Amino acid sequence: MPNPTAAMLVIGNEILSGRTRDSNLHFLAGELTRHGIDLREARVVSDSAAAIVQAINELRSRYDSVFTSGGIGPTHDDITADCVAEAFGVPVDVRDDARALLEAHYARTGSEINEARLRMARIPDGATLIDNPVSIAPGFTIGNVHVMAGVPTVFEAMVASVLPTLTGGAPLLSQSLRIMRGEGQIAGPLRDLAAEFPDLQMGSYPFQKDGAFGANVVIRGEDGARIDAAMTRLAGLFPE
Amino acid sequence: MPNPTAAMLVIGNEILSGRTRDSNLHFLAGELTRHGIDLREARVVSDSAAAIVQAINELRSRYDSVFTSGGIGPTHDDITADCVAEAFGVPVDVRDDARALLEAHYARTGSEINEARLRMARIPDGATLIDNPVSIAPGFTIGNVHVMAGVPTVFEAMVASVLPTLTGGAPLLSQSLRIMRGEGQIAGPLRDLAAEFPDLQMGSYPFQKDGAFGANVVIRGEDGARIDAAMTRLAGLFPE
Repeated sequence: MPNPTAAMLVIGNEILSGRTRDSNLHFLAGELTRHGIDLREARVVSDSAAAIVQAINELRSRYDSVFTSGGIGPTHDDITADCVAEAFGVPVDVRDDARALLEAHYARTGSEINEARLRMARIPDGATLIDNPVSIAPGFTIGNVHVMAGVPTVFEAMVASVLPTLTGGAPLLSQSLRIMRGEGQIAGPLRDLAAEFPDLQMGSYPFQKDGAFGANVVIRGEDGARIDAAMTRLAGLFPE
Repeated sequence: MPNPTAAMLVIGNEILSGRTRDSNLHFLAGELTRHGIDLREARVVSDSAAAIVQAINELRSRYDSVFTSGGIGPTHDDITADCVAEAFGVPVDVRDDARALLEAHYARTGSEINEARLRMARIPDGATLIDNPVSIAPGFTIGNVHVMAGVPTVFEAMVASVLPTLTGGAPLLSQSLRIMRGEGQIAGPLRDLAAEFPDLQMGSYPFQKDGAFGANVVIRGEDGARIDAAMTRLAGLFPE
């Protein structure tokens, strides 16, 4: 059975303006690979309602699950919950269970809940909450879409809350070999080797270091013994 | 006149498996912002022909220009040129001017062109070449799509070759203020300030450091004097 598929949607002007460098994609990609879920696509869109709604609807229809990051805080540019509700065609309002979590949190820290903070309790109808052990304000899951915060520590904690609820497939295994030759010399033999092992994926990722060209060749698949066999052949083709 | 819009398409399994962390998006985002081009969306897709063709066609119809990175090397998993040709419905083959660049390069370095290296001279009909001063194998522009390499040094050099050919708008200016309070305290006053300055964008980017909550508030716009005025008001609202 093929592995389940997934997409990620990163929401936020700050990535597209070059102000901030996203790190949540790289984190999620590694976690999903370990969990046997194929991350097939990622998108970054700005804080624009039309763009967010369109991306959510395209991605949730194309993939088994969708993970979003960003736009669920208390400020006026945090519009993700409203956009997700619009994409699903359901109402969104402050929900009692989410409000109770926030009230208890602010009571403990000696501050008060206000209108802005209450925005973080706006949850689309029919969603279930995602636990946020870091800063309490919850994420939520509706249909096949998991809506999470953009702050990396919070995003990572929410991913840890969601992943055990998802059914994964066989984890994708990989091995890599660093070959200090130009890709032009590697490409022919690698193509022939890939044809011999059609059950494995072989990728070549070139780099340049201190003026020399090299490539990391990565072999991926679900069967460790087959990867071992292909890797032995590869190493034999390119002795150091 | 509104600024021209753009999208980026990152092509490569290695980003989606979590093996590699993309850095080209962050670089391009900064360059486009300085050039007055609004980067509205970015996507990452795997080395799958169907996914690449669909993404190119969706993005080139939605935005003024599209920048791709990855998949134009000599190995069997480098399929970007063929996918771009398919998206545009034009033939693709080894082209004499691109072949001549490669032959001269390999003659200089004392190695020979081979079948794999010749793949890098496959250029869709009607495209113009993008200069690659780092490793010679060219990128290309077809219609509103700029096709570039994934290796960061090469990608960055190609962006430098392409940008002067594009008409930009007014550069987006920005200033930011670091406020050591939770976003829940910042949100209300910031929303009111944003309503007073409808010509500016105000965004709040929360962080957590050493257990304390804070946010960087960023004000963006095209008129530096207006940004100064709003920033002065913002600083007055949140004295240290």
